[in-house]
Amino acid sequence: MKSLQISTFGKPAAVVELVERDAPRPEAGQVLVAMEAAPINPSDLLLMRGRYGHRPRLPAELGTEGIGRIIDVGAAVAPTRVGERVLIVPTLRHGTWQDQVAVEADDALPVDPDADALQMAMLGINPMTADLLLRSFVDLPPGAWVAQTGGSSAVGSYVVALARQAGLRSLSLVRRPEAVPALLAAGADAVVVTGPQFADDVADALGDDRISLLIDGVAGDAVTDFVPWLAQGSTLVSYGGMSGGPVAMSPADLIFRDIRVRGFWQMHWLERTPREEVAAAYARLGALVGDGVLKAPVTATYTLDQCQAALAHAAETGRAGKVLFAW
Amino acid sequence: MKSLQISTFGKPAAVVELVERDAPRPEAGQVLVAMEAAPINPSDLLLMRGRYGHRPRLPAELGTEGIGRIIDVGAAVAPTRVGERVLIVPTLRHGTWQDQVAVEADDALPVDPDADALQMAMLGINPMTADLLLRSFVDLPPGAWVAQTGGSSAVGSYVVALARQAGLRSLSLVRRPEAVPALLAAGADAVVVTGPQFADDVADALGDDRISLLIDGVAGDAVTDFVPWLAQGSTLVSYGGMSGGPVAMSPADLIFRDIRVRGFWQMHWLERTPREEVAAAYARLGALVGDGVLKAPVTATYTLDQCQAALAHAAETGRAGKVLFAW
Repeated sequence: MKSLQISTFGKPAAVVELVERDAPRPEAGQVLVAMEAAPINPSDLLLMRGRYGHRPRLPAELGTEGIGRIIDVGAAVAPTRVGERVLIVPTLRHGTWQDQVAVEADDALPVDPDADALQMAMLGINPMTADLLLRSFVDLPPGAWVAQTGGSSAVGSYVVALARQAGLRSLSLVRRPEAVPALLAAGADAVVVTGPQFADDVADALGDDRISLLIDGVAGDAVTDFVPWLAQGSTLVSYGGMSGGPVAMSPADLIFRDIRVRGFWQMHWLERTPREEVAAAYARLGALVGDGVLKAPVTATYTLDQCQAALAHAAETGRAGKVLFAW
Repeated sequence: MKSLQISTFGKPAAVVELVERDAPRPEAGQVLVAMEAAPINPSDLLLMRGRYGHRPRLPAELGTEGIGRIIDVGAAVAPTRVGERVLIVPTLRHGTWQDQVAVEADDALPVDPDADALQMAMLGINPMTADLLLRSFVDLPPGAWVAQTGGSSAVGSYVVALARQAGLRSLSLVRRPEAVPALLAAGADAVVVTGPQFADDVADALGDDRISLLIDGVAGDAVTDFVPWLAQGSTLVSYGGMSGGPVAMSPADLIFRDIRVRGFWQMHWLERTPREEVAAAYARLGALVGDGVLKAPVTATYTLDQCQAALAHAAETGRAGKVLFAW
């Protein structure tokens, strides 16, 4: 079977290796999953460059999330699970960019067998990130404003949909005006575009209100521009740094306005959360993906053989949607 | 009687005005305090420049904290309070840089009548700031490392003494090597000096340990230099920005290392804390000042007539101690 790996860190399309190996056999407590679809996330590209919070020993299998079907089980796992469609929990312990993968039975969570494969394959990371960003850091009253940078990212579209579901108002910052209609269609209360008219557009959107939670995947100037619009005691949560800049705050904003700065990494949540609670959270969001309430645009799918093209495509800025491997 | 005020914002020594006015009469519920000593804090200088979190209407009386003796009481206040030595709670509602001031009876907290006047006059802001910085943001286990920038400030010396009292270890950053001995004498576990040897000196001090709480009054490069030494999940609390720089953090440090950034302003604590709790906290710290456990170096005292010289002195960088008005 085919498997993608790296033996050195570097530019993803340059360091990715397609290798042939024997299919794994499920050990006791494991299930064997034949992959159906697996996304390429920004975090995968960072990991391949050696710049992620997790730096695997090399050679390392690749791919963090995805869905597939159980085709075999090891000892101590009910044989009735064979045939189940499952989400592989993104623990960074198993590479999902391979034809088959053996995982612990409780890292394989059942999902809707009839839902769209590509949308369901993206459930593991981005919708959960959006959900946890919205509910883990501050208690937001109905109607509170949530703002986000990087609004046209996959996380961005989930944040808009989940904010709407929760009775919150969302304001998204995007770089490309072409990204505005899709976010408005997804239920955004306001979408503003980077540029000199930023402050006027934010003022129009907020009126006398201010932002209670700023979700930031960009850092740098995007954060600086938003700071004047943050409410007293509000929180900024960083989940990415696409601009390469820092998250910078003046001491006066921290001290007198009580602005709070935090970071979010899904791995920390997975490490400290009981597995039943994780499974329940995925079941809840999985139902929203199954219903089409949660969805992210898809730009292209590739096979493992096309890995160089797939990774080059995923690394392009200004893509209109996600790139996935599909079987 | 004499009173200091401003009618415009600007350079403290230039905008300060010495005015003669009638002594106030205590209204119902008030006490009249004849001032004994009142410090000049960095926050007073910021307020005079119009750059503080509180921007008073002009003309504005000056001075935020100090001690004095009750010389008269208004209706509904026990006449037995006359003669009491009191701390004026730093609520920003009364100017303490005047011969006499009328304040609400519960803004005048009794303090040790025999303690050193200058040390007791500084109790209101800096020791309480140090105490709240140490205990309001993280639960620190015994032996945990607390680091601070601006170690030679008044807050810095209180942080060292209170950390020692609480069984914590402290690492202070100072700019001047001359400041090292006093902090070591006050109980600092380590003192490092700004410069190229910073990283080596911090490594020597910490060994395999890392910093659980960083107390920052400087911002800018001082924060950047400390970030690699912060423990996973640690907190940075900003209470000042003497360098003029921002508090900047990389998204990777926020996300993967879960560094948390907060600000502290004593006014927020005073606003949300029941007055009995405030009084109890001052009684506890006042006893430590009375015992000499808590003390800050004093450089000079001035009379109100010498206000220009006093404010110019207080604005000098590299002072070896505090500047106060004394009567």
